Amino acid sequence: MHTLVLHEDPISGNCYKIRLTAALLALPIERRAYDIRKGETRTPEFLSTVSANGRIPVLQIDDRFLPESNAACHYLAHGSVLIPQDRFDQADMLRWMFWEQYNHEPNVATLRFWRAFIGEAALSDAQRDQLAGKQAAGEAALALMDEHLVGRHWFVGDLPSLADICLFAYTHVATEGGFDLTRYAALTDWLERVRALPDFVPLSD
Amino acid sequence: MHTLVLHEDPISGNCYKIRLTAALLALPIERRAYDIRKGETRTPEFLSTVSANGRIPVLQIDDRFLPESNAACHYLAHGSVLIPQDRFDQADMLRWMFWEQYNHEPNVATLRFWRAFIGEAALSDAQRDQLAGKQAAGEAALALMDEHLVGRHWFVGDLPSLADICLFAYTHVATEGGFDLTRYAALTDWLERVRALPDFVPLSD
Repeated sequence: MHTLVLHEDPISGNCYKIRLTAALLALPIERRAYDIRKGETRTPEFLSTVSANGRIPVLQIDDRFLPESNAACHYLAHGSVLIPQDRFDQADMLRWMFWEQYNHEPNVATLRFWRAFIGEAALSDAQRDQLAGKQAAGEAALALMDEHLVGRHWFVGDLPSLADICLFAYTHVATEGGFDLTRYAALTDWLERVRALPDFVPLSD
Repeated sequence: MHTLVLHEDPISGNCYKIRLTAALLALPIERRAYDIRKGETRTPEFLSTVSANGRIPVLQIDDRFLPESNAACHYLAHGSVLIPQDRFDQADMLRWMFWEQYNHEPNVATLRFWRAFIGEAALSDAQRDQLAGKQAAGEAALALMDEHLVGRHWFVGDLPSLADICLFAYTHVATEGGFDLTRYAALTDWLERVRALPDFVPLSD
């Protein structure tokens, strides 16, 4: 049995993905907190030991370090029911996870961080210039998820997978970023299905 | 044997990843070209049949469609030597692939598209405002790769994997985006190792 340590900021949805995956699989995981708003992941020590990329989450497995939230979830879920067995479904699960990092997180998660944790008044001009573009792109991402979920219970196949966990993390707190989830009926039903999974843990745990 | 069709724009590095993976694995793949600069991936027909996300590449496997370049590469490489067997190495390969989509592609690939295919004079104000930030983030991404490659032949373990293919695609044409690759010695050595792989095909093929 490996010792698992999650290097995280408790406010981060990317870190929460890993805690939720571990909880659903009943894997014990230690937590080590950093405050990204204080630059605690950009210290020389963090950069030389935990991750040269200066970001959390990083999953530590004994003395090895694995950055990138979705890769860490994939490590934890190896061989479990959270990764489909079918070759196409496996790749389709990864499709949603790559889509999350490219089309969803940079808009939905970034606006949440800017609006709920930095505050609009404290944004730089460069950040303020991006608000409208990120709002539109975030709404397009949520609408695409909603459309996909019409007539489906889960993103891939008939069972919950890492695609659902990784997309749940920032979607369920999208209102904190200024998104109106009541516009997306299939999406909000799916959020309730994720919350009802056995051993589910909330973000603020 | 499945029929594989790549829906692509031949200028796209994301599409090239899939062609390079298929070539290295000797998998025959048909190609169907769209011009993203003419909006050919945003037509009602494309959105309803190929991908609701309106982007290429999409890998068609018989009558099923798989968007997201890195997910398509993963499908093709299933069970091959391009995916390491070790559990940590598998996740570490995905780590680099997620990192590519989050930290590398939005900077290195976007600046190549803006500078080499749209042209700086034709950029919108919103795009122009992002040039400096994307230049700095792209340089940080290339420097991180270069540092990782010091003393290593490949990104993960001792053999080439999808991490190398997916990172090669936009790195080897980063000069078209205004990046100076001569600053990164370990990185340019690695580019030559990828080019020397048996059955390698170039982007402009």
